[in-house]
Amino acid sequence: MTEESSAQPDTVAAQNPDRAVILLSGGLDSATTLAIAIRRYRFECHTLALDYGQRHSAELEAARAVSKTLGAASHRTVSVDLRAIGGSALTAEIEIPESNSHDPTQSLKSGGIPVTYVPARNTILLAIALGLAETLDTGHLFIGVNAVDYSGYPDCRPQFIAAFEELARTATRYAVEGGPIRIHTPLIHLTKAEIIATGLDLGLDYANTVSCYQADDEGRACGRCDSCHIRRTGFTDAGVADPTRYIKIPT
Amino acid sequence: MTEESSAQPDTVAAQNPDRAVILLSGGLDSATTLAIAIRRYRFECHTLALDYGQRHSAELEAARAVSKTLGAASHRTVSVDLRAIGGSALTAEIEIPESNSHDPTQSLKSGGIPVTYVPARNTILLAIALGLAETLDTGHLFIGVNAVDYSGYPDCRPQFIAAFEELARTATRYAVEGGPIRIHTPLIHLTKAEIIATGLDLGLDYANTVSCYQADDEGRACGRCDSCHIRRTGFTDAGVADPTRYIKIPT
Repeated sequence: MTEESSAQPDTVAAQNPDRAVILLSGGLDSATTLAIAIRRYRFECHTLALDYGQRHSAELEAARAVSKTLGAASHRTVSVDLRAIGGSALTAEIEIPESNSHDPTQSLKSGGIPVTYVPARNTILLAIALGLAETLDTGHLFIGVNAVDYSGYPDCRPQFIAAFEELARTATRYAVEGGPIRIHTPLIHLTKAEIIATGLDLGLDYANTVSCYQADDEGRACGRCDSCHIRRTGFTDAGVADPTRYIKIPT
Repeated sequence: MTEESSAQPDTVAAQNPDRAVILLSGGLDSATTLAIAIRRYRFECHTLALDYGQRHSAELEAARAVSKTLGAASHRTVSVDLRAIGGSALTAEIEIPESNSHDPTQSLKSGGIPVTYVPARNTILLAIALGLAETLDTGHLFIGVNAVDYSGYPDCRPQFIAAFEELARTATRYAVEGGPIRIHTPLIHLTKAEIIATGLDLGLDYANTVSCYQADDEGRACGRCDSCHIRRTGFTDAGVADPTRYIKIPT
């Protein structure tokens, strides 16, 4: 099982009354994932942000703030300098294109995969989260991947998550000694509007989250990149006001 | 396929005339792995060392020197601060026990797994190597894991490598677009003496490698820890002189 859609919250909580590691980027999706893990499933949540040399640190500050506001038991930022391996518009000097399509997932694609794709990013994120989970004596990981809006990223697909779950069952002392492993992906089949509705239902304030690929130092969004476009459309589709702080109001 | 023992070098070279990423720790095993990749299989080798907050940097210097001496096309050191997640004698303030058994693999075990085990270390190493491989447009990775002397580490076993290979086939743009993925583990079923004989046959100078868990700043080995014990026994079993530089000659 790598999907949450059919799981009953009470069942999950009854089976797993304890710890989980939540990957937190500071964006809308991972904040919603934390809200689900902590307020719906009642895990003791330990949040983990990765500083991988991304272009701005506003999202790392947002991750810390969201973790504290939602009441996580601990928050860690782990640095890994992915600029040394290059290959992405998010870590290298590749220009981030503006969204120029009514289907924003198409606008950044090169051979079907966006230039903002970071090579093996979710593999690296989950690997480090797995290490933290082991030191916390748990096998529960949460990651806010989504296969609807970001189908261009290979490491956001259900088959990737299933393969990582299998890997994790062979990789650690915790698993070898019989500990259960579960990679939770509660958002994987939700639209952006459904994700937003879920978060609002759980009392999440999205004004504290940063999704923009090139936010400024104060966490204000550009309003023009692919990520901003998907996010804004999500609020419109959900029928709620967009609380995002923009550098200038998008036209 | 995750094992090299039955592969014919010429066959491998004919199928794969180009690039590979080699994980290099600066120790005896990974140096031998690089020698095999570059001198036997004739890959264009790009070496990758991980600075994960280990206790000493002598092994990182050794990795750089070994890469250069053997003629790798490039060398990178990627920093990831695993001290933030803790859990190992190699990154935290846990005492490294002295080897006190004729079976040194037994001496450090706690519930079957050594205290020097770093949580999810090889998962993290391979994840970062996978990202580098993708930016280099290859799916060939080499890692010097060994299931004979280090059977206590879950992430040195063939089933772990096979699971990572499956994961890699779903994880990256390179794989999704049809690129072949192969995790090469040429040492996995060799004894330490066989590894040493292989490296010597390929002209490797083991004096430049550092295996000790607590080497000094000049790369001199303690001669007392588990890793030193296994290494020294390997040279004895191979019937060759031990070129290791020790802080003091072991008794």
